[in-house]
Amino acid sequence: MTSPGTPASPAYRRLSVEERRIQLLGAALSLFAHRAPDDVSLDDVAEAAGVSRPLVYRYFPGGKQQLYEAALRSAADELELCFTEPPVGSPTERLVRVLDRYLAFVDQHDAGFSALLRGGSVAETSRTTAIVDEVRRAAAEQILVHLGVDRPGNRLRMMVRTWIAAVEAASLIWLDEEKRPPADELRGWLVDHLVALLAATTATDEETAAVVKRLLAQETPDGPVGRLARRVLPVVGEAAHLI
Amino acid sequence: MTSPGTPASPAYRRLSVEERRIQLLGAALSLFAHRAPDDVSLDDVAEAAGVSRPLVYRYFPGGKQQLYEAALRSAADELELCFTEPPVGSPTERLVRVLDRYLAFVDQHDAGFSALLRGGSVAETSRTTAIVDEVRRAAAEQILVHLGVDRPGNRLRMMVRTWIAAVEAASLIWLDEEKRPPADELRGWLVDHLVALLAATTATDEETAAVVKRLLAQETPDGPVGRLARRVLPVVGEAAHLI
Repeated sequence: MTSPGTPASPAYRRLSVEERRIQLLGAALSLFAHRAPDDVSLDDVAEAAGVSRPLVYRYFPGGKQQLYEAALRSAADELELCFTEPPVGSPTERLVRVLDRYLAFVDQHDAGFSALLRGGSVAETSRTTAIVDEVRRAAAEQILVHLGVDRPGNRLRMMVRTWIAAVEAASLIWLDEEKRPPADELRGWLVDHLVALLAATTATDEETAAVVKRLLAQETPDGPVGRLARRVLPVVGEAAHLI
Repeated sequence: MTSPGTPASPAYRRLSVEERRIQLLGAALSLFAHRAPDDVSLDDVAEAAGVSRPLVYRYFPGGKQQLYEAALRSAADELELCFTEPPVGSPTERLVRVLDRYLAFVDQHDAGFSALLRGGSVAETSRTTAIVDEVRRAAAEQILVHLGVDRPGNRLRMMVRTWIAAVEAASLIWLDEEKRPPADELRGWLVDHLVALLAATTATDEETAAVVKRLLAQETPDGPVGRLARRVLPVVGEAAHLI
């Protein structure tokens, strides 16, 4: 019972156009997060939102494809937000926080993330590919911000982008293997991967050498680089005959 | 002029069914190697082979899609052959030879390689995706053979597969940047990348540590690992406060 002057409860209130759009998109997002796009029908979206199929078409005349692209756009925006990290703490500590948010996103969008990056679905078009590439570019830009580089040379840019590709591949394998190892172990290894790649790239690129020198000065003995360095030292010992 | 008993010159001889099929596939392969599938028409294939469009359909009733998949199958077989390398010389010397063949393949199939791996074309289906994945698996298997590992644990397998993803990403960037740096520089960096990744993975995986120990014993001071180790040593010096 509502007394005069009390707003109608949401269950009885008619949704505004924008509210309805958001509700339908929310239903689509949850479905596309956990299933491949080919396994989601417009009827599924209508049912999940508790509305009729014609109503979904009224808001998304392009049908499933339009809903998929809108859901992808929304997920891409969310993911790009994950990459933003204030320049507080050592560079690897910041990387740890970003990767933890990223892996939580992968965990929450598992089947949809996997289907999107694996390709082969009819829902993938040059538009969806462009959205994925935009996310990759955003990730690369944020890394370069923390490396303190404005206009990276070819080698440094290639290094960052190949590491991002490696992270994507690792995420897909992680999903395939039922999210094993635990996310924090995977994250630790991905940090080690970037540190190792930066170190190796110093061998042939002066810009990277200068960046690494600056970064190392900000690291602490009990941080990821210190731990990695101490653990890899015995391996360097095995390579004494090569030096 | 042909004298009696001389076989007719190929230009005048009617091709057998198998020869015609190979000729059409060859024409399709050259077209799909240098253009995105969406930019190749059946007419282009007919013209390149010097035959009529109906003749192409007689051999490939599935039209362009069937030709694309047959061309991809053929290119995949060629690429998988590139990965086979006898166990002669140090492990990194073998890797150098495989990567040189791989980069020559990427160079020869530039636009088609790029379009295939970037996705977003209507010619890509779950079948084409399966072929690409099969090539990745073949690459991973060959690497594990040279690492001397029969049944790799999760971490080592993930390491190999993420490095392969990084190589693919680097190849695409290389094609985008008009094949700069020169292929041998790119190859050198990809070798450094794998060596660094192996070294970093020893920190948290005993199997990888044992593999690396065996591999290092086979390397020589003037090989890629020796060169990398000597060049990275000054960086390790910068990290003295962390150890």
